[in-house]
Amino acid sequence: MDYTPVPEDKFTFGLWTVGWQGRDPFGDATRPVLDPVESVQRLAELGAYGVSFHDDDLIPFGSSDSEREAHVKRFRQALDTTGMKVPAATTNLFTHPVFKDGAFTANDRDIRRYAIRKVIRNIDLAVELGAEVYVAWGGREGAESGAAKDVRVALDRMKEAFDLLGDYITEQGYNLRFAIEPKPNEPRGDILLPTVGHALSFIERLERPELFGVNPEVGHEQMAGLNFPHGIAQALWAGKLFHIDLNGQNGIKYDQDLRFGVGDTRAAFWLVDLLESAGYSGPKTFDFKPPRTEDIAGVWASAAGCMRNYLILKARAAAFRADPAVQQALRDSRLDQLAQPTAADGIAGLLADRSAFEDFDVEAAAARGMAFERLDQLAMDHLLGV
Amino acid sequence: MDYTPVPEDKFTFGLWTVGWQGRDPFGDATRPVLDPVESVQRLAELGAYGVSFHDDDLIPFGSSDSEREAHVKRFRQALDTTGMKVPAATTNLFTHPVFKDGAFTANDRDIRRYAIRKVIRNIDLAVELGAEVYVAWGGREGAESGAAKDVRVALDRMKEAFDLLGDYITEQGYNLRFAIEPKPNEPRGDILLPTVGHALSFIERLERPELFGVNPEVGHEQMAGLNFPHGIAQALWAGKLFHIDLNGQNGIKYDQDLRFGVGDTRAAFWLVDLLESAGYSGPKTFDFKPPRTEDIAGVWASAAGCMRNYLILKARAAAFRADPAVQQALRDSRLDQLAQPTAADGIAGLLADRSAFEDFDVEAAAARGMAFERLDQLAMDHLLGV
Amino acid sequence: MDYTPVPEDKFTFGLWTVGWQGRDPFGDATRPVLDPVESVQRLAELGAYGVSFHDDDLIPFGSSDSEREAHVKRFRQALDTTGMKVPAATTNLFTHPVFKDGAFTANDRDIRRYAIRKVIRNIDLAVELGAEVYVAWGGREGAESGAAKDVRVALDRMKEAFDLLGDYITEQGYNLRFAIEPKPNEPRGDILLPTVGHALSFIERLERPELFGVNPEVGHEQMAGLNFPHGIAQALWAGKLFHIDLNGQNGIKYDQDLRFGVGDTRAAFWLVDLLESAGYSGPKTFDFKPPRTEDIAGVWASAAGCMRNYLILKARAAAFRADPAVQQALRDSRLDQLAQPTAADGIAGLLADRSAFEDFDVEAAAARGMAFERLDQLAMDHLLGV
Amino acid sequence: MDYTPVPEDKFTFGLWTVGWQGRDPFGDATRPVLDPVESVQRLAELGAYGVSFHDDDLIPFGSSDSEREAHVKRFRQALDTTGMKVPAATTNLFTHPVFKDGAFTANDRDIRRYAIRKVIRNIDLAVELGAEVYVAWGGREGAESGAAKDVRVALDRMKEAFDLLGDYITEQGYNLRFAIEPKPNEPRGDILLPTVGHALSFIERLERPELFGVNPEVGHEQMAGLNFPHGIAQALWAGKLFHIDLNGQNGIKYDQDLRFGVGDTRAAFWLVDLLESAGYSGPKTFDFKPPRTEDIAGVWASAAGCMRNYLILKARAAAFRADPAVQQALRDSRLDQLAQPTAADGIAGLLADRSAFEDFDVEAAAARGMAFERLDQLAMDHLLGV
Repeated sequence: MDYTPVPEDKFTFGLWTVGWQGRDPFGDATRPVLDPVESVQRLAELGAYGVSFHDDDLIPFGSSDSEREAHVKRFRQALDTTGMKVPAATTNLFTHPVFKDGAFTANDRDIRRYAIRKVIRNIDLAVELGAEVYVAWGGREGAESGAAKDVRVALDRMKEAFDLLGDYITEQGYNLRFAIEPKPNEPRGDILLPTVGHALSFIERLERPELFGVNPEVGHEQMAGLNFPHGIAQALWAGKLFHIDLNGQNGIKYDQDLRFGVGDTRAAFWLVDLLESAGYSGPKTFDFKPPRTEDIAGVWASAAGCMRNYLILKARAAAFRADPAVQQALRDSRLDQLAQPTAADGIAGLLADRSAFEDFDVEAAAARGMAFERLDQLAMDHLLGV
Repeated sequence: MDYTPVPEDKFTFGLWTVGWQGRDPFGDATRPVLDPVESVQRLAELGAYGVSFHDDDLIPFGSSDSEREAHVKRFRQALDTTGMKVPAATTNLFTHPVFKDGAFTANDRDIRRYAIRKVIRNIDLAVELGAEVYVAWGGREGAESGAAKDVRVALDRMKEAFDLLGDYITEQGYNLRFAIEPKPNEPRGDILLPTVGHALSFIERLERPELFGVNPEVGHEQMAGLNFPHGIAQALWAGKLFHIDLNGQNGIKYDQDLRFGVGDTRAAFWLVDLLESAGYSGPKTFDFKPPRTEDIAGVWASAAGCMRNYLILKARAAAFRADPAVQQALRDSRLDQLAQPTAADGIAGLLADRSAFEDFDVEAAAARGMAFERLDQLAMDHLLGV
Repeated sequence: MDYTPVPEDKFTFGLWTVGWQGRDPFGDATRPVLDPVESVQRLAELGAYGVSFHDDDLIPFGSSDSEREAHVKRFRQALDTTGMKVPAATTNLFTHPVFKDGAFTANDRDIRRYAIRKVIRNIDLAVELGAEVYVAWGGREGAESGAAKDVRVALDRMKEAFDLLGDYITEQGYNLRFAIEPKPNEPRGDILLPTVGHALSFIERLERPELFGVNPEVGHEQMAGLNFPHGIAQALWAGKLFHIDLNGQNGIKYDQDLRFGVGDTRAAFWLVDLLESAGYSGPKTFDFKPPRTEDIAGVWASAAGCMRNYLILKARAAAFRADPAVQQALRDSRLDQLAQPTAADGIAGLLADRSAFEDFDVEAAAARGMAFERLDQLAMDHLLGV
Repeated sequence: MDYTPVPEDKFTFGLWTVGWQGRDPFGDATRPVLDPVESVQRLAELGAYGVSFHDDDLIPFGSSDSEREAHVKRFRQALDTTGMKVPAATTNLFTHPVFKDGAFTANDRDIRRYAIRKVIRNIDLAVELGAEVYVAWGGREGAESGAAKDVRVALDRMKEAFDLLGDYITEQGYNLRFAIEPKPNEPRGDILLPTVGHALSFIERLERPELFGVNPEVGHEQMAGLNFPHGIAQALWAGKLFHIDLNGQNGIKYDQDLRFGVGDTRAAFWLVDLLESAGYSGPKTFDFKPPRTEDIAGVWASAAGCMRNYLILKARAAAFRADPAVQQALRDSRLDQLAQPTAADGIAGLLADRSAFEDFDVEAAAARGMAFERLDQLAMDHLLGV
């Protein structure tokens, strides 16, 4: 079987991923600056569909207008030459020290205003380059100590910012939707909207909720010990999976951004199974960091591994679902019953049904085995290609 | 200063807390059964306002109707004698083996039907006893393996159950609201609606969202490493803090249910500060487990400690907020600016304001210190009563 | 390829694993009592090599001497009939409420004396049944609060107990060694000797350190977020891996005891690779709990899955090590250089070598890539059987 | 009560702590370079006893010999002027990209040799400046993937390096001991010697174990969810607490390096209680990072807070131990019994004592309450100064 990606797989990469120089809290950069144009070319050769970017990835912070234009022009040429797309983009609201206390929820009002303007500027470029999703990661919206942020007030400010952005793209007539990316902590001690659930809930209080969805990232939910496929299922259930960031993480610790498939490989298998079963059609974006032990050859090996692992897991999940033994095991575990309404007869019918309660044989029902271990071993066999 | 609780403090206890016999995954009960009537009496003496209960706490599972009546009668007499209230109640959908794969989302349809009927039966009793909040903890709604539960389908079933219950109390004209209690894991490998955020988001997809709020529990959110006061702030912001469960937890590990105030004492301080500042007026329920090392005297010492710690922290938080040095420090950290709208001038005004972006002195803004460490040390001093 | 276990694989199971009735902190037993004799027979049929036991697994707590004899006799017959071995045994020092504050480090002196006697009694039986390893898990040795246990004093008591046991088996001339099993928490808030490292270090202060090693359990180390294969490597390096408990765990949370191979499958792969490379020849004991959703058929499916997964991973690890591409990749990552002494020339030679420091081209060395991503993708391919 | 530190308190600070510029994985520096001389002066004014340093903190990496001399001279003058001491020093083996795969256990042999030489060079300086402890944090000794490091071989290399260093200081006649600092992860996916226990155990296999102890850091152990005071107690019990790094951490997440006292305040209380009870007389070093939200005034506020919190907790712990109610509560919890030998009568006496087993009333012993909750509430009252 061949696991070579093609553009139809819709794999995309952030420029900041392969371009990460390897600077970490305890160490200096181990790799030189990577030209975004080179990234576009190499990723195209590897079979990717597109790239996404922060404003500052493409146009170094503080560039003049003419420099900006030159950067954009070169980038656009690379896209045209390679056929690569830009399905999504985002704003860097975290690197510059001005954002040290946040952007949309910075205590300083002028910084909040600046942040929104920085976003708007890059939205214009993103739309120009064809993006239909705008990712919003509020990595600095948070606090290290309890009085430093009045969270209810900060959520008011967060809502205000997103409502303003919703107004803007509506007035401009842009075909763009926002995908909010949750994260529990790092770089702040605690970040607002820490999980997929918190972000989904927040969206419901916005003025234009239809414009907003989520961009879950594997490692971010796993940093809170949460089951990533479960979170994605809830986002899909809510109709809000607008984008997804794929990578790997070894449990609850610092944000690792490993290549996709490593870390919790079983969770990755169930994730791919879910995305494919659910017919998710957006870009599959790898938001990873090639370890700083790697030179540039290692960077491309790592990027290629992300896509390869997705394709392997996709094949395994398909085989799992197609296997008659699995289908029987699912019935043995009564997944078919789960799909039936509990009380199509409504509350009245349920109350009238003595077999539901008064005459229900609780002990007999309790004695039934669920046969989950057998089902899960079949999944393991398929994952491992036995 | 006196930290003796009075009913006006609205402290309540679950019957299952002081009544916990100390059975854990590796050990048998260390304490005898505690009569609910004794619990009511002793808690009243300690200064509590009320109690809450699971159906099976009050009426042992499998009791006949006449036994049931006798249990309820004795309990009601104890309430009458002591003046204790029952502001909330809940259903045990987790102890009996019939619920081993869940209740509202069990794969077996008949078990789902039975579960809803069990809830309805206890709702009737709860309302009869004066409860206005009905807590729903779906501790068994989850899975240990990936194929065992189709989460999107399970959420359909969860919604169906809550919608039926909403219908029921509406039809009955009950003055009751539901408070969904999230938990990330234990006793299931992963539980559905794992955090406050996930529950808040789920509620928005129900047919009668106004009847549903959340019942966050300190330890449950901390088991996911989340900042509990932040979660409560978001629940308050969403208008959904219908009930709260107070206890202690030492970080990410098994569910400890320590007495309130221990575990993360600083988070407890900020929580009390928030509840009191926000004017939360519901019951403050202690959902803790006196360690199994304790005999019955230790149980009451532990219960008394919960209330005492709340009152100490309440006094400390009030002193913190009243301190002029703190008020100045809050201004120095620009909390007052956070309370101002970012762009009362709307998107047009913001775009027209060159000082917001084109002429903004980013470096000067970046150089401002936030003075959070000084503010937080004032908080520490107040917490420690220096 | 066939993954059917045979006794030569030396797979063993604790009686308490398949015999677990499914009682958890929130639920009652879901399965009936399982006769140890049936366990021996069924495990033999599945291809296991042996079983291990706690005293109370075999002989219910409080049995009379004649009952005890009868239980032992039946068990021994089952062993004889099936050819199953008892390579290891252990003592239950945690279920009975008398151990609620510990056994060897209980504050109450008489309980400490009782605990040591209980161990000695079962050591006699273990030796009689052929065991050569005696496992010691001090699950109740710990505390929930800071003043409850003076840890330095408690370690004195722990040392005293193990020294007495060392005296006993030496005097008896038993061919037995102890394997201390670390765990960070649960059922106590914090347990003494929380990790493999703490146990290894403790052993060095015993009077007869040669009699003591460790019995690491996959999930226990992973409950502290530690890399299990790394811990095993350090135990092997110290010459102290006397026994091993295999199971699965999904990260930092309550003790899950899933079947081996699930949870962190990649860690399981590296573990098997290490055990096989290192020539570990002791029993591979599965210390897992078939989920309480399972009936007895599910129990055996789960047990079979443990062994099957080990054998699959063993085959994959062997193929990984045999693959010439892997061998080249290991050289590319300079694993061969790691195996060379750093300074066979000693401190004098190293100081005299200007190329080591004064003339060392730091930047050139820094620019070398480690090629770990390519190597790890080869491992992923082998794990997944691509 | 006054909580102003004086040199006799032996508080020291790493130059890298107050000098941290606020560069994190997602953001650039928020503070300018801080001159080590200014740090010495300001810390002296705040009441500190001394400072410690990495070679590269004092002498920028790549300085010429004459630059080096000038840096050392200015630093020494500042020490002389202020009376500040340098009780400990350490080597930076992690910032430069050459150490991206480790130092003592780098796969590349020449990097290992360079690393040892870099350490030796700074040992000479440290001794010259009066240091008696040399800290060794192997932050880059580890891996992100399983085949990248053969851990048993890497431990051989780690031992080789420390043995060489032991030879060196012995030959030089230096009055110096090494303190190995464990950490579980970050910046590597997994770091070798991840906890206090692993480091203590490793030391026992060195050629000159008497020269080696540990330097535990609050946050590092808490990143593994471990009880820090328990770990310190074991290090003291082993006679190996050569140095200690104090800071704050909010549970299992990225390394936060908050000021001492925040994070788990109760653990900080028990830690201070332990250090003071045990008569620890070494330097109390604050290894923290003033949050990057702070300007330089915030840096000094944060540093002052570290010392203030220690002194507050010291006073509270002393009051706790002196309180007759506490002393009675400790007896009620039988801490006095824990201090008695379990079997001064030896194994023979214990076996002969029928009251220890045959005639032991297990149920009566099991019924005794431990009274830990009351004891712990007294601790809470003292901590909070009630």
